[in-house]
Amino acid sequence: MIRFFAEPFDISADTIRLSEEDSGHIRTLRLRPEEQFIVCDGNGTDYVCKLGEREDYSIAEISDKYKSHGEPSIKCRVYMAFSKGDRLDYATQKSVELGANEIILFESKRCVAVPRDIAKKIDRLQRIVYETAKQSGRGIIPTISSGGKFDNVINEAVKYSDLALLFYENENNLHIKKVLENQLSQSTKSVSVITGPEGGFEPHEVMLASSKNIPVVSLGPRILRSETAPVVALAAIMYHTGNL
Amino acid sequence: MIRFFAEPFDISADTIRLSEEDSGHIRTLRLRPEEQFIVCDGNGTDYVCKLGEREDYSIAEISDKYKSHGEPSIKCRVYMAFSKGDRLDYATQKSVELGANEIILFESKRCVAVPRDIAKKIDRLQRIVYETAKQSGRGIIPTISSGGKFDNVINEAVKYSDLALLFYENENNLHIKKVLENQLSQSTKSVSVITGPEGGFEPHEVMLASSKNIPVVSLGPRILRSETAPVVALAAIMYHTGNL
Repeated sequence: MIRFFAEPFDISADTIRLSEEDSGHIRTLRLRPEEQFIVCDGNGTDYVCKLGEREDYSIAEISDKYKSHGEPSIKCRVYMAFSKGDRLDYATQKSVELGANEIILFESKRCVAVPRDIAKKIDRLQRIVYETAKQSGRGIIPTISSGGKFDNVINEAVKYSDLALLFYENENNLHIKKVLENQLSQSTKSVSVITGPEGGFEPHEVMLASSKNIPVVSLGPRILRSETAPVVALAAIMYHTGNL
Repeated sequence: MIRFFAEPFDISADTIRLSEEDSGHIRTLRLRPEEQFIVCDGNGTDYVCKLGEREDYSIAEISDKYKSHGEPSIKCRVYMAFSKGDRLDYATQKSVELGANEIILFESKRCVAVPRDIAKKIDRLQRIVYETAKQSGRGIIPTISSGGKFDNVINEAVKYSDLALLFYENENNLHIKKVLENQLSQSTKSVSVITGPEGGFEPHEVMLASSKNIPVVSLGPRILRSETAPVVALAAIMYHTGNL
């Protein structure tokens, strides 16, 4: 079913006021009065709606509501180093499809492509996040932001998640399966995934993470591209926790 | 370490004849005589090589050999429906990074973008496969081909793999984790992953697969894009079988 997001203050007991963009979209789709669509409050609740007989494309009549199906039981924060070209677009889109809760971009030593205008880059990615959240049936719109430098980001990851993992292509022993089997439990509510830029992390960055008790983890013997690593890590976590 | 592929007939006991392209690459890299690089025979064996003192960029001297690290213990065939734009490029690249053994493209009812010149499309994708196999450290160059129509492809998937799975966005009960836990065993050597085009499979295609005892499987409550589904399915299989 087609989905939209609405702001909580636009939702009353019986009706939802749609944004200009969404009501334009509904008009283009030529929805009939009785056809159902979903409006999500971006806060985990889906409202089953129809236009009703009033022929007003900006008002949706609520016929039912329930907890959004699209939210995983675990909150994943994805920390990705700035990467070249459309790699961030891709990793952002796939992370949202896979259920990431939050995406944080950061600068690491080997980043070759930190954008001059970070706010503009984030704006552009925020649009990708929004569209993907709508299309993939998410119950929230994940946030995307800049986390500054690597050392700031690892402090934040440790502080704000039950488990933080740094993925490193030169790690050959500690595989993700072992880590999730040993370190994820029923009480783990949030996981941070930290992945590097095209050239990988510098050894001293890896040591710094290690010194903060962040496990340094392998995603297998094949070298994954910078935009692939966060997606595979997320897929593994969602699979492991029964969210696929 | 930098990697190349060589044809088996170019490999002798002590030396390997490099392709013109690869020796050009080595020349550009200004490798020193003692610097090591890997030449893989595309058949699961890696040769540790150096140029040696002869200053001939087309001959690599073998100093060691071992089984390639990049090949998973399970052979995955990825059957993907033709998709629009660069979606196939993306899914092809990521499938190779994740260890797919073979990629087969096919036509299904809702395909909106079957290329007029399929051979040309395959040629282009073959280049992506080759470059990705090199970069990600694969021990083989996966094949990519066209499998024709959907019904042909499902017969083939059943015939040539121990377990074939069709992924369907309208399936809500049978999740991939349950399927892999119940149906993958030590004796499962090969798995086929079958994913649809942008618009998904037609119900009668799903029924046909079901009638051939192909499990119809969910990848979770979020709708994955056509190019994301095969990647997530492969990631789950590689994770489950200890290949990540």
